[in-house]
Amino acid sequence: MFEPLKKRIAEEGQNLGDGILKVDPFINHQVDPILMDACGQALADLFRAVHPTKVLTAEISGIAPALMTAKYLDVPVVYARKHKPVTMPDTVYLTVAPSHTKGRMVELIVSPEYLANGERVLIIDDFLASGATIAGLVRLAQTAGATLVGIGALIEKTFEGGRDLLSYLDVPVEALVKIDSLDDGQIIFAEA
Amino acid sequence: MFEPLKKRIAEEGQNLGDGILKVDPFINHQVDPILMDACGQALADLFRAVHPTKVLTAEISGIAPALMTAKYLDVPVVYARKHKPVTMPDTVYLTVAPSHTKGRMVELIVSPEYLANGERVLIIDDFLASGATIAGLVRLAQTAGATLVGIGALIEKTFEGGRDLLSYLDVPVEALVKIDSLDDGQIIFAEA
Repeated sequence: MFEPLKKRIAEEGQNLGDGILKVDPFINHQVDPILMDACGQALADLFRAVHPTKVLTAEISGIAPALMTAKYLDVPVVYARKHKPVTMPDTVYLTVAPSHTKGRMVELIVSPEYLANGERVLIIDDFLASGATIAGLVRLAQTAGATLVGIGALIEKTFEGGRDLLSYLDVPVEALVKIDSLDDGQIIFAEA
Repeated sequence: MFEPLKKRIAEEGQNLGDGILKVDPFINHQVDPILMDACGQALADLFRAVHPTKVLTAEISGIAPALMTAKYLDVPVVYARKHKPVTMPDTVYLTVAPSHTKGRMVELIVSPEYLANGERVLIIDDFLASGATIAGLVRLAQTAGATLVGIGALIEKTFEGGRDLLSYLDVPVEALVKIDSLDDGQIIFAEA
């Protein structure tokens, strides 16, 4: 458990019900760059031994933690786009994944220019919940012929089962803070 | 002119025509976190004297430069959302701005929770082109009762006139690299 992030969630996180934890004051709408930098360093330390050559995340809220993690690993970060910009080539890697917060499927798109055969990919996101978005990023990495070497998140909601969903991948899955329950308006952290 | 960024644009930037400069390998889809960190430090140095208390940007591609700038200023960064997430309150600040790359109007939404009366706001974005997105962020800051203290960008396309559009604001406008022309498939930097 990464105490600076746990402390911040305890102080400023809001349980909105329906399993939704609002962390907009320091992660998702407003970002505390000093905290995020420290989180990136902590995640980088957890994965340095598996030698990632690239960090992969999904826009939008994965960008800040992935960027800071990539900085400490000194590797590039690629963020999957949800809409294909005009600067992308005609042929891309695309997968669809259900979005819990949007209540519909979203597209995740990566250009083959920046995700290649032989890369050692570390996936970083803000939340590990159902694992659906991360599983989508895994499919993109696999389609590119890259090797997945790890999965990291700032916050894991253990009760949504994402870790089980991803266990078949046989790579390290790490979260800086684990939350076991958001029932009854509370925020119950996992035992250290 | 910030030489590390200028050099990278000269080496890896692609002129796609129609005034579009592709910087996807190091800014817009893949991000070089070491370069972005250096850019954030350079932008922070340019604006430290105007004492910002908050950095404001727009998702998606503004997040990386704004986050790094905010880190060196030790202030929070807020990124305007283009879609209102479920974690946002019912009543928000919203403006619309034309998107050059999308060819349509997009919404820019900020929660009043994180943009308040009395804040000293520094706007940071990846590009200063027509100034339309930045002008939208200015309207959000003004609506919130905040004081605009500066506008910074990684790359200015001087030929799109954004600087003139924003000149009535009477705040410092800075760009790390200025490009005077993308005609004839070339990338012509401004004289130093």
